[in-house]
Amino acid sequence: MAAALSLAERGLGRVWPNPSVGCVIVRDGQVVGRGATAPGGRPHGETEALRMAGDLARGATAYVSLEPCNHHGKTPPCTEALLAAGIARAVIACEDPDPRVMGGGIRRLREGGVQVDVGLLKAEAEALNEGFFLRLREKRPLVTLKLATSLDGRIATRSGESKWITGETARAWGHAIRTRHDAVMVGSGTALADDPELTVRLPGLEGRKPVRVVVDSRLRLPLTSRLVRTADRAPTWVVTQKGGTDATRARAFTECGVELLEVPAGPQGEMPIAAVLEALAARGLTRVMVEGGARLAASLVRAGLVDRVEWFRAGLLLGGDGLPATMPFGLTALADAPRFERVSVRQAGEDVLESYRRSG
Amino acid sequence: MAAALSLAERGLGRVWPNPSVGCVIVRDGQVVGRGATAPGGRPHGETEALRMAGDLARGATAYVSLEPCNHHGKTPPCTEALLAAGIARAVIACEDPDPRVMGGGIRRLREGGVQVDVGLLKAEAEALNEGFFLRLREKRPLVTLKLATSLDGRIATRSGESKWITGETARAWGHAIRTRHDAVMVGSGTALADDPELTVRLPGLEGRKPVRVVVDSRLRLPLTSRLVRTADRAPTWVVTQKGGTDATRARAFTECGVELLEVPAGPQGEMPIAAVLEALAARGLTRVMVEGGARLAASLVRAGLVDRVEWFRAGLLLGGDGLPATMPFGLTALADAPRFERVSVRQAGEDVLESYRRSG
Repeated sequence: MAAALSLAERGLGRVWPNPSVGCVIVRDGQVVGRGATAPGGRPHGETEALRMAGDLARGATAYVSLEPCNHHGKTPPCTEALLAAGIARAVIACEDPDPRVMGGGIRRLREGGVQVDVGLLKAEAEALNEGFFLRLREKRPLVTLKLATSLDGRIATRSGESKWITGETARAWGHAIRTRHDAVMVGSGTALADDPELTVRLPGLEGRKPVRVVVDSRLRLPLTSRLVRTADRAPTWVVTQKGGTDATRARAFTECGVELLEVPAGPQGEMPIAAVLEALAARGLTRVMVEGGARLAASLVRAGLVDRVEWFRAGLLLGGDGLPATMPFGLTALADAPRFERVSVRQAGEDVLESYRRSG
Repeated sequence: MAAALSLAERGLGRVWPNPSVGCVIVRDGQVVGRGATAPGGRPHGETEALRMAGDLARGATAYVSLEPCNHHGKTPPCTEALLAAGIARAVIACEDPDPRVMGGGIRRLREGGVQVDVGLLKAEAEALNEGFFLRLREKRPLVTLKLATSLDGRIATRSGESKWITGETARAWGHAIRTRHDAVMVGSGTALADDPELTVRLPGLEGRKPVRVVVDSRLRLPLTSRLVRTADRAPTWVVTQKGGTDATRARAFTECGVELLEVPAGPQGEMPIAAVLEALAARGLTRVMVEGGARLAASLVRAGLVDRVEWFRAGLLLGGDGLPATMPFGLTALADAPRFERVSVRQAGEDVLESYRRSG
């Protein structure tokens, strides 16, 4: 199952809107088939593993990281493929909360005479599928906040010098984290200030193209920005406010290849961050990495919508007047502060990468 | 030598103005004597180890964490005691930069026929003695900054709620770190706001009484504060500005048992932080732990006078409007930022203790 999960992990960031599923087929203690959800979401991992196993699948055990599908979608159901191949036992890490599945795949296999065991490495499988599950259950993608700060949580000096607080290794790791997400998102302030490209610039991974998302209620992003100019080469979405811009400007963006997502304004005319995430989930995104700026980060953290934090910290102090990584939360009581649990600490060149999960 | 260093380490915080020295005497592979500088700085580690070894010291090897003294101070020179006991070989971790010693102890032993080897675990010994060495070389004590913050480096919410960001374990560890310092220092703002006691409140360690130092240029500290009221029970120093207060008020403090240290004002009428440290070193302090507030921390960090940071971080975010651990540095260029190297990360209950050393 660890192998199946590891296969599934490689699919993160390129199988959306589908979950990434790994499948390992074992016969007489030998691995005879392995497969994972292919880029784009099809074929499924089971299909690929069964194809590799061929006749050896008969009487074998299939380890699958998520309950096999039981419905006719764009592919025939995996349950039927497993039954047809003569799989004798299926070990499944966790159930699929997709309303079209929800235990139906397990039931179908059992009816077909397969011995089914559920729950092996369940917690790991659920963490892996968290984005897909959140999309189904909360109609929003998993949100990872990436920070690159000084030890005291500052992203720039008082005068705005920020290039580079963290070193080359940390920046390369940052690109690697992008590949494991369906999309990379920034606020319009950061898009204007930094004119970023938000692509994956790592040898061998140039083909990975997470969607680039800009939250820009009034379409302030210039048509000459790198993001708009390269919109024909990498998917680029701009989330605007309904009525926040005129049709001519919107059309200019669309003609450049930018996809516009409209979100209704909140009661104070603001951009409701939960609605932004809902729009992204509706378009299929399961894992979104937020790279700034401080305003977007603060609104997400404050709303309890940041699930993970990947925090690069460089060994320097910038002081109380350095620019903070998040804007004001407006918090007064400590008890209301969003809490995070440290999952790991790794050395990233001269910097340190701390990984957190939301814990409250 | 590791044993000698470990013995020496226990003396940190209670041997000032002396260095803490450990000595282990080994004969035929057996430890026959062990000693460390006693609380107060006397007797020296060598004396104690020789006393324990008695006649067994003849022909034995002495491992000493710092070059033995060769001058008549309040105790007779250790070199003479080692020679008189018939030590055949001395292994010394590092030389003593005290101008009264500076290789003289090693020379004296060699003249007396002892085989002397220098440099075993030198780096560790120098780190252990850093406070003593800084006092001699730079006329200031070692400065450890203790911080207890949220993940984003905040010490309170915008409204000032700070009790407690870190948990009980972290607070107990904070007391343990106090015992390893000669003094605990705060600024007057913190002394006024928190009315702290700055004592060691750990079972079995109540007897440890690091000096409590308040930097208070105009003697704003009330006579009714906990620090002044308990000045008869634990050493309490207040560093004031020359001419910053009148004689009557100064006398009231002295009558309560507070010792006043006067420092001349800087060109802008400010309290020059380097002069404060010099005054503390002149009074014998070798290791000072700074516990706040944000203004004192900033002036020390900015001046490059913080040697170590002991940073407790709790798993929560307080946002851009939380109170920062340090006041503005006035930094514009990243290249000028004070740099620190992470030495260790330890779990302290639900919090994490990160230890840093200055690296630039």
